[in-house]
Amino acid sequence: MGAMKWWGWGEEGVAFTHEDKPGLAPFIERVIGLDVRRPGTPTIAFEQLHVAEPNLPAPLRSALERAVGADQLSTDAHERVVHGRGKSLRDLVRQRRGDLGRLPDAVVRPADEDQATALLRAAIDSDAVVIPFGGGSSIAGSLEAEPGERRPVISVDMARLNRVLAVDPTSQLARVQAGVFGPDLERQLNAQGWTCGHFPDSFTHSTLGGWIATRSSGMQSDRYGDIADLTRGLRVVTPSGVLELRPVPSTSTGPSVREMVLGSEGRLGIITEATIHVRRLPPQRRILGYLFPTWAAGLAALRDIAASEASPSVTRVSDAAETALSFATRKDPTLLDKLKSRALQVFLERRGVDPAVMCLSFIGYEGSADHVAVQRKLTERIVKRHGGLGIGQSPGELYDQKKFDTPYIRDFLLDRGAPSDVSETSAPWGELQTVYDNVMAAGHAAFDQLGMRGYLMCHLSHSYHAGACLYFTFALNPSGTRDALEEYDVVKSAIQQAFVDSGATLSHHHAVGTEHAQWLEEDISVPGVAMLRALFEGTDPGANLNPGKIVVSPPDLGPGETLPGGESSSANGRAGGSRRSVDAQQGSQPPA
Amino acid sequence: MGAMKWWGWGEEGVAFTHEDKPGLAPFIERVIGLDVRRPGTPTIAFEQLHVAEPNLPAPLRSALERAVGADQLSTDAHERVVHGRGKSLRDLVRQRRGDLGRLPDAVVRPADEDQATALLRAAIDSDAVVIPFGGGSSIAGSLEAEPGERRPVISVDMARLNRVLAVDPTSQLARVQAGVFGPDLERQLNAQGWTCGHFPDSFTHSTLGGWIATRSSGMQSDRYGDIADLTRGLRVVTPSGVLELRPVPSTSTGPSVREMVLGSEGRLGIITEATIHVRRLPPQRRILGYLFPTWAAGLAALRDIAASEASPSVTRVSDAAETALSFATRKDPTLLDKLKSRALQVFLERRGVDPAVMCLSFIGYEGSADHVAVQRKLTERIVKRHGGLGIGQSPGELYDQKKFDTPYIRDFLLDRGAPSDVSETSAPWGELQTVYDNVMAAGHAAFDQLGMRGYLMCHLSHSYHAGACLYFTFALNPSGTRDALEEYDVVKSAIQQAFVDSGATLSHHHAVGTEHAQWLEEDISVPGVAMLRALFEGTDPGANLNPGKIVVSPPDLGPGETLPGGESSSANGRAGGSRRSVDAQQGSQPPA
Repeated sequence: MGAMKWWGWGEEGVAFTHEDKPGLAPFIERVIGLDVRRPGTPTIAFEQLHVAEPNLPAPLRSALERAVGADQLSTDAHERVVHGRGKSLRDLVRQRRGDLGRLPDAVVRPADEDQATALLRAAIDSDAVVIPFGGGSSIAGSLEAEPGERRPVISVDMARLNRVLAVDPTSQLARVQAGVFGPDLERQLNAQGWTCGHFPDSFTHSTLGGWIATRSSGMQSDRYGDIADLTRGLRVVTPSGVLELRPVPSTSTGPSVREMVLGSEGRLGIITEATIHVRRLPPQRRILGYLFPTWAAGLAALRDIAASEASPSVTRVSDAAETALSFATRKDPTLLDKLKSRALQVFLERRGVDPAVMCLSFIGYEGSADHVAVQRKLTERIVKRHGGLGIGQSPGELYDQKKFDTPYIRDFLLDRGAPSDVSETSAPWGELQTVYDNVMAAGHAAFDQLGMRGYLMCHLSHSYHAGACLYFTFALNPSGTRDALEEYDVVKSAIQQAFVDSGATLSHHHAVGTEHAQWLEEDISVPGVAMLRALFEGTDPGANLNPGKIVVSPPDLGPGETLPGGESSSANGRAGGSRRSVDAQQGSQPPA
Repeated sequence: MGAMKWWGWGEEGVAFTHEDKPGLAPFIERVIGLDVRRPGTPTIAFEQLHVAEPNLPAPLRSALERAVGADQLSTDAHERVVHGRGKSLRDLVRQRRGDLGRLPDAVVRPADEDQATALLRAAIDSDAVVIPFGGGSSIAGSLEAEPGERRPVISVDMARLNRVLAVDPTSQLARVQAGVFGPDLERQLNAQGWTCGHFPDSFTHSTLGGWIATRSSGMQSDRYGDIADLTRGLRVVTPSGVLELRPVPSTSTGPSVREMVLGSEGRLGIITEATIHVRRLPPQRRILGYLFPTWAAGLAALRDIAASEASPSVTRVSDAAETALSFATRKDPTLLDKLKSRALQVFLERRGVDPAVMCLSFIGYEGSADHVAVQRKLTERIVKRHGGLGIGQSPGELYDQKKFDTPYIRDFLLDRGAPSDVSETSAPWGELQTVYDNVMAAGHAAFDQLGMRGYLMCHLSHSYHAGACLYFTFALNPSGTRDALEEYDVVKSAIQQAFVDSGATLSHHHAVGTEHAQWLEEDISVPGVAMLRALFEGTDPGANLNPGKIVVSPPDLGPGETLPGGESSSANGRAGGSRRSVDAQQGSQPPA
């Protein structure tokens, strides 16, 4: 797995296009007044960027080269730019502008835990900053050095630690190196008949260590659990040596150190290895489509499923706005035409489904044929009670195939100047409708305040006993008179503020980083942040480990620093080139 | 729920007896050479104890009285003795000897969070030590002040915070005050049709806050989860204010502060409230008995159940030694006679079950009648594959009714001078047989080293995807020539050491306290302990919150201190009085 584009999501040459989706351009024009048929903005080439010289004192360079080998240390400009930050909307916009931030001074690639230990020791001895780097897919600002950082900054790329070391079939556990990417992990496990079952949207461009460091959650978490459930044993290189946590199923050894490493975003050390749950590849796997007459009915159905004896592997429902986008994103117009046909409308109306407010849902089942049949029967009984209507297998299959293409859409819209982004949260079942209503009100109030046209939509995914995740996506057509990032901030902040004001959390599975840090005290309260600070400062007294993430650095570390680059750069856009088309989409696929 | 006996488990007047169990006394005599038919040792009355005067400076007393009301502060000798420690074997032996340790100087009973906040503030302002107290059932030494503690020590009894504040039926969550005892919690929830489903052996004498502070696990954890899974929201009075964690189902807000409070044993603050999972009372609940031909077959069956699509609510199997005790503990001799009958032996042999090595198992099912039937069918298919044999409902019912009486047996044996205790651990499925073998070897080597007769037995309970809990019980017939606690220590230490040497954990659900603290570095590694220390020291810089638990205090806090009392006391035994008989038992009931 190579590094992603320096300016956007995914591999060079792969992009989203509207051209094979006849309904999409008219839809976008209708909802935010943006004509995506016009070509994108001209771009500058990488060579036109201003990349600052690295600050890597010779003794530090020597020590790092001794740690990982001279050929595994790079100060190459492209490497440093690619490793300089993640892929948040703010990251993408700034990269396109040539505002590169405080770039790392070197990228090192350890081969194993010993090398990671040696490089961390070298860095701390030279008072350098160490930032572990997995797939670089962070959308929370977890990977960028602090703007005023004067110390050398080392990005530690974990991609060489990419092996499944052992599978214990009796315990259903696998020892895995933390730098492995999602597809490579599944390939190695599948070859032995196993799966980890963790499929976040970032799957193709994220790593096991990154999932652990950010508390990732995959689309089948209802069955497999979040990464926090899947991760049992851990090995982490810390300033005081290698932390070794045994892969025991449950333990009573005081506050959970395992649950401190989970979500630590590099602030406690470099995660080198994890022992994770694996399961036999299921004989059957089905993801079926359903339509609910309203969002409220969809929420109620999924809540009742969570409280029932049914245990589907995926539960997901989109609101009407996201459902409309899904139908507009179809390649094959046949079904939309069918839906629009008088006969089908009559049918839907008889079932109480108004096409304007209907909500598309996917529910997955997996296991033996018997198990799938029983789960499906139990689940569909509840779906039916809430007026839901099965629409078969092909929409779910399409969704399942295309789900990892979603992040490409942000680049497609940014090519045309339009920021779009996501914000997700979780809350108890009883609060979800209120959280949803409050976020919708806050988002639309932000659009109104800016005098802009925007679109805001949502789906529910990741069901638990006592609540679920709500995942919001928004896009806006910038005014052109103000800075697009400032306009974006107004909307993003309004949504995040609505989360914490409504009793929900600042993020269900995207982490805190720097993007969400300002809401942390409102979420986990002041004493909660104090505990995190105590943990970080006590474990890393020199503040060498990815400082400033989750809990902001104390004001005495770099007061009055200004962001290098900032608004001064006029570089905008990116290098062109031929692109492979992908069928990325933010929402989900309609029946085809 | 009143306080427990100052010298033993449970309520005054309740005790275990062998008299209605004709097989038990011969069994004990056979296995450890102890004649339990001889009457217990004479005891001293509470009045004969030497109880040190409390050290409670007047300004601190006034501040505490202002915090909780003068009538809710006590310096009464009996109160202080009852709150001085928990119920570990070491605690029981020392209490019986009149070695009371560093008693608290006062017991306070806050009525609510505001009072808890005020008393913590008062204590910190006076540099006093605060030890939260739930049911006092700790068997890990979590409740006793450090021997050399010179500061005033305040025991905070949480029993007045005993209400279920609200049940949210939509979210399946209940807001509950942390001082509520198990039976009271279930009574309040059951009245509204709900259950928490958390039933540890200590259930009748432990509280929600205590479960959270020690990472408790209940007998139906396979279905309901451990307390760590059941606990979502938390309110904790800390030195920097009230920690408020939202009851969200999952969150990505950095290292989990929720999982720091879990297992914190009072070192981070006073837990006042939790929002916990609740479930509708199940229509059906069955606990059925099974016999496996060998321990290995029982382990393999339970492992296969955990890997299957079956989801029973309880999975438990005893080894042959525990099975033998169970059969010896029956009240009704009919079944043993039956088992011993030639006909049944032939029957068992035909099924491949040797009565000398057979293993008794309980498997529970709950939910709708359909669900129970399906789970039972799936499970029994696996049981049968491993040579298991169903023995019906009555053994399980008896076990279910009597399980909370188990802790009384330690007092019964101590009355006759014999120490007995438990040590439990967890490990991956693939390691359980090795852990078991190593612990058995270590325990018996310890008996041999001491030249004593001892008994060591085990059951598996609490199954997870990737492993399970092994729960060991041992008893020894002391030599009479050495200190019984020293002899006990040799055995207890050998077992604990075998845990950590075998890759298992020092405790699955009994916590660290002081009893297990010496194995913590071997379990979670030196950097893991360093992280806990960072958390505790940063959150509680004055070391006012239950210091010395989990992570031992730095040597500069009380070097060279000696334990008051020590071996000097000749007090032994306890006050007599009429006792209600309970059918306590360490293992499990035979078919009746």
